[in-house]
Amino acid sequence: LSAGARAPHWDTVAIIGVGLMGGSIGLALKERRLARRVVGVGRRQESLDRARAAGAIDEGVLELEAAVAHAELIIACTPVGRIVEDVTRAARACPAGALLTDAGSTKQQIVARLDGKLPGKLGTARFVGSHPLAGSEKNGPQNARADLYEGRLVLVTPGKKSAPADVQATCDFWSALGASVWQMSPLAHDKALANTSHMPHLVSAALAGATPPEDRPLCGTGWRDTTRIAGGDVEVWTQIFLANQQNTLKSLARFEKTLSAMRAALERGDETRLAKLLTEAKQNRDALGS
Amino acid sequence: LSAGARAPHWDTVAIIGVGLMGGSIGLALKERRLARRVVGVGRRQESLDRARAAGAIDEGVLELEAAVAHAELIIACTPVGRIVEDVTRAARACPAGALLTDAGSTKQQIVARLDGKLPGKLGTARFVGSHPLAGSEKNGPQNARADLYEGRLVLVTPGKKSAPADVQATCDFWSALGASVWQMSPLAHDKALANTSHMPHLVSAALAGATPPEDRPLCGTGWRDTTRIAGGDVEVWTQIFLANQQNTLKSLARFEKTLSAMRAALERGDETRLAKLLTEAKQNRDALGS
Repeated sequence: LSAGARAPHWDTVAIIGVGLMGGSIGLALKERRLARRVVGVGRRQESLDRARAAGAIDEGVLELEAAVAHAELIIACTPVGRIVEDVTRAARACPAGALLTDAGSTKQQIVARLDGKLPGKLGTARFVGSHPLAGSEKNGPQNARADLYEGRLVLVTPGKKSAPADVQATCDFWSALGASVWQMSPLAHDKALANTSHMPHLVSAALAGATPPEDRPLCGTGWRDTTRIAGGDVEVWTQIFLANQQNTLKSLARFEKTLSAMRAALERGDETRLAKLLTEAKQNRDALGS
Repeated sequence: LSAGARAPHWDTVAIIGVGLMGGSIGLALKERRLARRVVGVGRRQESLDRARAAGAIDEGVLELEAAVAHAELIIACTPVGRIVEDVTRAARACPAGALLTDAGSTKQQIVARLDGKLPGKLGTARFVGSHPLAGSEKNGPQNARADLYEGRLVLVTPGKKSAPADVQATCDFWSALGASVWQMSPLAHDKALANTSHMPHLVSAALAGATPPEDRPLCGTGWRDTTRIAGGDVEVWTQIFLANQQNTLKSLARFEKTLSAMRAALERGDETRLAKLLTEAKQNRDALGS
């Protein structure tokens, strides 16, 4: 939000998928009085009812096309593998000039398939990709919070055909929810996130999967911290890995190289080398704080 | 602490090493009025002064032999690589019949070198190994807490020559600090802890070490959780790995096998297989709770 800018205000906003991310957007929009009406789209009536009871949406609709019919802003908060289809369907049914964005954890594939390719009435539906770094292994609308995005970083990833005004409007939307916003290319996004999120999830899951069940009582806080993200939603993460396959594999090769160096030092009983590698890791970790 | 047993009470207790673990033992002993006098041993006057100011010890002494001269209970809370030497020196200088234990994260090597081999005046000094699962990446006496051991698990690992009464006395000591106590063999301990603590630390460190510094701003809570233990003390962990080398390497092979299966599924784009592996990991994680 540039200095002096007023927070935007929308009449009707549609949120496709009312889990943790979508539900929290709805709660924030309502609490900050940024939208007159929030419509939620879901596949199950139960989730919609829960989101409405929580105050995250004003109305829950099972049919996507009906939900977006009057929306000027539409956010797709469905799993990565469904975003392209959901946005495309929304673009066909929404009013001319509506802005569409998403909250998907990968961006290259999604932006490549949507950038300048939306059907849109009069060809004016506009999509700019987003990724709020505000996930959690605690999914579902019951964990949604109005302050989920406050002080968190949202990455906005314009495509080559994005209009600057649309990019700005997308940034303003997230800023209005209290987030900091950075712009980067979809490619740079997916490379970096493979290192900082996708590969770590795979490593955490491998650790959880490799621990013999009979040793569970001896798992302390260290194990719990290190495997926490392995408790995340399987469908969501399977789709993230497949959508960012090549970058995740490259990150994994990088991880395996570092781990191999540590293993080699341990095999040789090389105290100096092992301590050096652990020191480098600690410095990298300490640079981030708790 | 068996039902109906009274909490033990000691006249003089010596704690070798007054960091997080040792300092917390001192605080708990004083707060629970379990010892008349707690003497701390350290290599630096500064740490001893800080531990005394915090109320963790009554007296700080730089010379180990002087510190243990009147102690009936001695706990070595130094890094794993120094425990055998510290306990041996303490056994030579302590009163006849003193009980010695430790708080080291590995047990096989330590117990093998100390079990029935203490010099002790009249040959009566007795050692029983312990490992409280209460570490933290936040080391140092400044993080010591009287309740560090409350509700935590302490593993007591008798050697073949341990007298049952000494094992019981060691268990009673930790119970008196509020901990739950389990007995297991040093070998079973080291195998299990390689899976639940040592290998996870190496994996966490490799992850922290492999993350490009330029991507740091994009590290979210997932990365932070997964790499938290990589911030632990390098000297402490280098010694743990070297002392439990073979078991840690076996655990690592197990981890690498699981990770390789995930990598293969990702390389093939095999959604079903990848989801199955992630589900197994999630089930293992969810079995432990947050």
